[in-house]
Amino acid sequence: MKPTTSFIPGPSQIYFTTEDHIRKGFRENVPSISHRSKEFEKIFQSTTESLRALLSIPSNYHIFFIGSATEVWERASQNLVYETSFHFVNGAFSLRFFETAKQLGKQAAAQQVEAGKGFTNSQVPQGVELIATIANETSTGVTTSNNFVADVRKQNPNALIITDAVSALPYQSIDFSIIDSCFFSVQKGFGLPAGLGVWLVNERCIAKADELQTNKKNIGSYHSIPSLLAMAKKNQTPETPNVLGIYLLGKVSEDFLRRGLEVIRRETEYKSAILYQVLENHSIVKPAVQEKEWRSKTTIVAETANLTEKLNTYLESKGLLPGDGYGAAKKTQLRFANFPAHSKEVYENLVDLIKEFE
Amino acid sequence: MKPTTSFIPGPSQIYFTTEDHIRKGFRENVPSISHRSKEFEKIFQSTTESLRALLSIPSNYHIFFIGSATEVWERASQNLVYETSFHFVNGAFSLRFFETAKQLGKQAAAQQVEAGKGFTNSQVPQGVELIATIANETSTGVTTSNNFVADVRKQNPNALIITDAVSALPYQSIDFSIIDSCFFSVQKGFGLPAGLGVWLVNERCIAKADELQTNKKNIGSYHSIPSLLAMAKKNQTPETPNVLGIYLLGKVSEDFLRRGLEVIRRETEYKSAILYQVLENHSIVKPAVQEKEWRSKTTIVAETANLTEKLNTYLESKGLLPGDGYGAAKKTQLRFANFPAHSKEVYENLVDLIKEFE
Repeated sequence: MKPTTSFIPGPSQIYFTTEDHIRKGFRENVPSISHRSKEFEKIFQSTTESLRALLSIPSNYHIFFIGSATEVWERASQNLVYETSFHFVNGAFSLRFFETAKQLGKQAAAQQVEAGKGFTNSQVPQGVELIATIANETSTGVTTSNNFVADVRKQNPNALIITDAVSALPYQSIDFSIIDSCFFSVQKGFGLPAGLGVWLVNERCIAKADELQTNKKNIGSYHSIPSLLAMAKKNQTPETPNVLGIYLLGKVSEDFLRRGLEVIRRETEYKSAILYQVLENHSIVKPAVQEKEWRSKTTIVAETANLTEKLNTYLESKGLLPGDGYGAAKKTQLRFANFPAHSKEVYENLVDLIKEFE
Repeated sequence: MKPTTSFIPGPSQIYFTTEDHIRKGFRENVPSISHRSKEFEKIFQSTTESLRALLSIPSNYHIFFIGSATEVWERASQNLVYETSFHFVNGAFSLRFFETAKQLGKQAAAQQVEAGKGFTNSQVPQGVELIATIANETSTGVTTSNNFVADVRKQNPNALIITDAVSALPYQSIDFSIIDSCFFSVQKGFGLPAGLGVWLVNERCIAKADELQTNKKNIGSYHSIPSLLAMAKKNQTPETPNVLGIYLLGKVSEDFLRRGLEVIRRETEYKSAILYQVLENHSIVKPAVQEKEWRSKTTIVAETANLTEKLNTYLESKGLLPGDGYGAAKKTQLRFANFPAHSKEVYENLVDLIKEFE
């Protein structure tokens, strides 16, 4: 297979140090160590410390490792809600969280806007227990600002707020003081093989889950918040986890820390700026998101209309794999992940190729 | 770190081809491919076909990939039980399935025997919906025979039977015609990095889960049987799965097929025979399981009494890592996994060292 760069927004391009870390992990017997051993506890602790440093996660947050971000839609609905949740829905992934809550018997409501749009006002009903926001809607390339979330917090101080940060991290700065929980998976911005989710919860979430459990509500078993917390306090997990995945997340987080998050952010902004610029000035393809403040820096969606297949084929012939438009937009849009694994050079090449494509 | 062989019964010794398969997987961009792509569907299909061939899984069984075997304790309780389950409990892992069912609000009952014992008779109450058996209780090294399960089936034809086969496969022959579901994880007999579970269900399980769903019971969301089935029919998974893990499971299953399951079984029996023999004839250490018919071939537990630490240290100094005794037996037993990753030579070495240790 010839060398290619994947711009699919997850699983995406693998970060360039990952394979070396796997090799080193095998030399250190990481895949063979017991998940009940001191060696595992050291890996767990090291990874959570690196993540905490990288993402500025405050000390009142606990870090849990679960199977996927999808799993959090279920676990959060079970553990943080007696009856009511509210969802800001602006694409397929925020919609699935909303649908999961309903499927689990919760009275879930949503404020929905059309694809490509973000939120300007919030209509959260009084007394709702859990509010779900999405930092970066991967299906549409729309971002939600901390300012908007801060407003939601101000208006609903008693509700728990959970932020889907799946394709936003590590680039997007999450203000942990205005939310209560956040989750992501490792196959997006961290450039790792899929199969691991990370769930952050603060003390208010712990208290809520404890209360639900005390009141005999079904909060699940091994991956309930109390179960995850009891094991995380020992730097362990309730089940045999993806040990190698946790190890790799720690190693890549260390790499990001060494490179510097400010450098990664500057590069992300540079890469997104040159791509949006070429889309804005192009005679055929256009940015899918009109409002500049809503444009994601980490998932850039191009309106490619009836040239979608042609552009896709052209880029693929040059070794660059765009992501398909999501769902109904499959034939009219292409998506471009902009993660730390995508170098400035590869982005400049992408931009030049799109420019040439007239 | 010096070269060692892990006899811990999972995560255990990694199968010797695994690292090469990872390298090849990276060359083929497996970690970067979309889980909604044709390439992924091919991997899913290839892995399920290899597993089906290797384990003789009949065509009325569906193969699902989930996070861990632990997850199945929860999903099975949710998807296969309105009210009642029954559990054959002879160690820590069968106990946790029982406890999970209770935690999820099911009326679970159990027939319990002490550590080191198996079952001679069954006391399943009339009309129970789900019966859980365990092919190999990893905590005690006790096996359950197909004959026993066949008897249970005969006496309870209407109940669904689910078999925990976590540390039994691929060695132990599962008779799929007398059960309805079976599950395992890949970090035991398959010699792979942890982070992937496999759940097999037949048409009776599908029908039961559908019925529960129709009757508005909470069967979960993305990992309910109907959701897993709908995606498995497309060779996909509901969430972004451990793609590399699924790929590796397929590759190692192919290796096992090439080597021949009969060869693997003969070697497993040879290795267990020489270890049990040395334990039986030893002046100090003894087999923990008295009854020969209950003795596991894949997890051999030694009663090491007050010499546990000394023997452990001795074997570790020779590069061989035994598993600790489980739970209360931590200070009086050692466990030895006997998986395809453990060569005859390494077992002969282990046996010689134990023999010398007087």
